[in-house]
Amino acid sequence: MTLVLHELCGSDPARVFSPFCWRIHMALLHKGLPFESRPWRFGDRAEIADAGADKVPVLRDGDRSLRESWDILLYLEDHYPGRPTLFGGEGGRALSRFVLDWCDTVLHPAVGGLIISDIPPLLRPADRDYFESSRTARFGRPLHEVTAGREERLPAFRKLLEPLRATLRRQFWLHGATPGAADYIVFGAFQWARCVSPLPLLEAEDPVHGWRGRLLDAFGGAARAVPAVDPG
Amino acid sequence: MTLVLHELCGSDPARVFSPFCWRIHMALLHKGLPFESRPWRFGDRAEIADAGADKVPVLRDGDRSLRESWDILLYLEDHYPGRPTLFGGEGGRALSRFVLDWCDTVLHPAVGGLIISDIPPLLRPADRDYFESSRTARFGRPLHEVTAGREERLPAFRKLLEPLRATLRRQFWLHGATPGAADYIVFGAFQWARCVSPLPLLEAEDPVHGWRGRLLDAFGGAARAVPAVDPG
Repeated sequence: MTLVLHELCGSDPARVFSPFCWRIHMALLHKGLPFESRPWRFGDRAEIADAGADKVPVLRDGDRSLRESWDILLYLEDHYPGRPTLFGGEGGRALSRFVLDWCDTVLHPAVGGLIISDIPPLLRPADRDYFESSRTARFGRPLHEVTAGREERLPAFRKLLEPLRATLRRQFWLHGATPGAADYIVFGAFQWARCVSPLPLLEAEDPVHGWRGRLLDAFGGAARAVPAVDPG
Repeated sequence: MTLVLHELCGSDPARVFSPFCWRIHMALLHKGLPFESRPWRFGDRAEIADAGADKVPVLRDGDRSLRESWDILLYLEDHYPGRPTLFGGEGGRALSRFVLDWCDTVLHPAVGGLIISDIPPLLRPADRDYFESSRTARFGRPLHEVTAGREERLPAFRKLLEPLRATLRRQFWLHGATPGAADYIVFGAFQWARCVSPLPLLEAEDPVHGWRGRLLDAFGGAARAVPAVDPG
């Protein structure tokens, strides 16, 4: 039975842009598991309520419904062990969690602070109010204020990427010689930005830019095929 | 033949305090390899020149001399495969490098900015000038200025630890169910601070404090036995 991934999109169902969903989208491609990407919008709560979820990603695998990107990654690794590994062993599994925590506590807030105001125009009018009010509450101020002066903040943002950059100067992928869950976790943040914002987060000569390009090209260019504002 | 680890100390040979040396010290204990810790001071360049090194750690294993903490970790894992693993597989090896890069580019500069001025009084008078001038050049200002107002900067420092804290809320060690190289790499920074500075970097209720305590207690309390300014 084909797996189903509920993925966040805006008005355009092809523009799936959630960083959390991209983790799973790429992991499914990595595992070589055929899946149907089912566009989901903020108003579609009823579609995933049976999974105990109020946000995506939600993965359906036969009778099973899974939520939370980390738990879905663990599920895919453990239930499809004959397929290419996402973690590369127990150490990789544990440290992929550190990468995810770095992503969620450092990278996502920083990316959000640069691009969040670009998102409402891409949403269905019915979803805009929810998004504006929930994100304004999260950031504590109007979204246009959150991203004000963002060009001037790019150098500080790029400095935050230094650990990533240092590792990618030494090895082709975070995961080592081949990509793995850690790469997809971090990639989600950049794909999020690319799909919703014209702001070029990365300079062309940055090793992080090269790595992002390799992930955009992976799996037949699946991630590159999604409509992007910054085609970088 | 017993391995020899050249480790940085100050006037007191028992106070080995280099964060880079502690990575290897703990890794050797983890591997269960007997070793002689040989105190090394900044002026002792001649002792390690034959290893092509001008700083420590330097590890001697029979005829082999190794330098650079990352390369020594790889060596220990690959040359002593029958002993407990430091990486837990290929994924863990690759991602331990990301942890090291996070440590070197984020954690060490932050810890240094809080404690660096505590180090000169612990050194032999002959080493103080070298340390003061080289570190003043690195930070771009006198060391007492670098650490000025440090108590007020502790909240910002503790916020930097959020990725670490988030992971340690979920799992006992960075490496997972048992400690590994990633734990020792990060621990080095806290042991460095503990051995040279009275500044309490961590609050008692912080999961990072609990994790540090478990590493201080590991291997019969080897790290706790070193003279410390902050006994935390």
